[in-house]
Amino acid sequence: MNYLTGFHAIEERIKLGKESGRECGPLFMAKAGPRAREIANLASVRKVRIERIGAFELDRLAPGNRGIALQVEDAGRGKADTSIEEFIAGLGERADVLVLILDEITDPHNYGAILRSCDQFGVDLVVSRNRRNAKHADVVSKTSAGTSAWVPQAETANLVRAAGQLKDAGFWLYGADMNGEPAHSIGLRGRIALILGSEGSGISRLLLETCDGTVGIPSLGRVDSLNVSVAAGVLLYEAQRQRVAG
Amino acid sequence: MNYLTGFHAIEERIKLGKESGRECGPLFMAKAGPRAREIANLASVRKVRIERIGAFELDRLAPGNRGIALQVEDAGRGKADTSIEEFIAGLGERADVLVLILDEITDPHNYGAILRSCDQFGVDLVVSRNRRNAKHADVVSKTSAGTSAWVPQAETANLVRAAGQLKDAGFWLYGADMNGEPAHSIGLRGRIALILGSEGSGISRLLLETCDGTVGIPSLGRVDSLNVSVAAGVLLYEAQRQRVAG
Repeated sequence: MNYLTGFHAIEERIKLGKESGRECGPLFMAKAGPRAREIANLASVRKVRIERIGAFELDRLAPGNRGIALQVEDAGRGKADTSIEEFIAGLGERADVLVLILDEITDPHNYGAILRSCDQFGVDLVVSRNRRNAKHADVVSKTSAGTSAWVPQAETANLVRAAGQLKDAGFWLYGADMNGEPAHSIGLRGRIALILGSEGSGISRLLLETCDGTVGIPSLGRVDSLNVSVAAGVLLYEAQRQRVAG
Repeated sequence: MNYLTGFHAIEERIKLGKESGRECGPLFMAKAGPRAREIANLASVRKVRIERIGAFELDRLAPGNRGIALQVEDAGRGKADTSIEEFIAGLGERADVLVLILDEITDPHNYGAILRSCDQFGVDLVVSRNRRNAKHADVVSKTSAGTSAWVPQAETANLVRAAGQLKDAGFWLYGADMNGEPAHSIGLRGRIALILGSEGSGISRLLLETCDGTVGIPSLGRVDSLNVSVAAGVLLYEAQRQRVAG
């Protein structure tokens, strides 16, 4: 059994409700602040069962909670280890899907921080090359604040092939490049795969050639580059902002 | 003498031109791609002198350039070491000013990555507490990709007092908080100071009390938190996006 503890995540999941085909609940509630009580009200309106328990019990069920935790059968997205094929097969008719392809992000701190952002911004799948990529599990797990355990990730030996498969499944591919179109001026709704290269050498040529366009973050600075995990965070934020703000 | 090498930074500076009271030029140009040539055209229209030199010479003047470098008397903003008083005195009538206040960001990697984002997003001043803050110069310089040498920074023993001084100078203060108003729904143009606390304990109470509001980054994830340098990057991006996109 899984528990959602993020307020926003709980809210979204309750709103999705039964039409998504995903049961949720009960909402476990300990001593809770105004925001958590507001969410409990929503749960009650949406007929999600609420169960009051002690703070100690709640902490045991769902460490890091802030007064409430929603029981879900799954984490709301797929499982942590998947394949491109399995992921695409499970998409059905979903319109808004966000995938992140990592090309040679070898530093485990960066990889972990990126996974954490993927959790925050609801990325549906992270694709990376096996073997050469950052996979120092301990550092990754720690810097990802545990999110490496549930953010769906697919490893593949051939990123170009994976990009092609996503394209066939209706994805638009955008390569991150400091000289690309400003992110806020590109439509990032729908099925989108963002491709991120290493800070040193960028996206490899063959992979870049599969892209439908490039996306950048305009710089006002003297150095035309961001830390790769910051760049990832900003691009994922922008994609989700467009989904929320329309 | 300083040299701007970022395309966007050069463009902005040329556009600002003489009305800003800041001379710039010449624009040094080696073998340059289409984007650099476009900027050279702009320079020529704006009567900025262009000097052709060899790639080797240009690299010596301005390492990390991509074919062009604009000579400027200053880095376009203040100097790296300043004080709140000096900064405010130099503002004049400027309407859009972005300040970042760091409350107990003790990890030098995070501090460096944040400075790098401050360069990218044109932050006008970074304020931090002296002594207890992250100041391991070597790590900071490296992770900041050198930007620690020119991003304007003021150290102060009393952040609450500094926040008050900024308020008196017409700044709106927003504390970063995961439960704050979504960043995209807050107006972040004008004179804005963003306050960022440590990942563990957030913004200290007294400092939070000086804020006009809180600003958050909505989470779709199970963990309601971002790496602090990613959160800083996203909030600075959003502030600049609003300035550019209106």
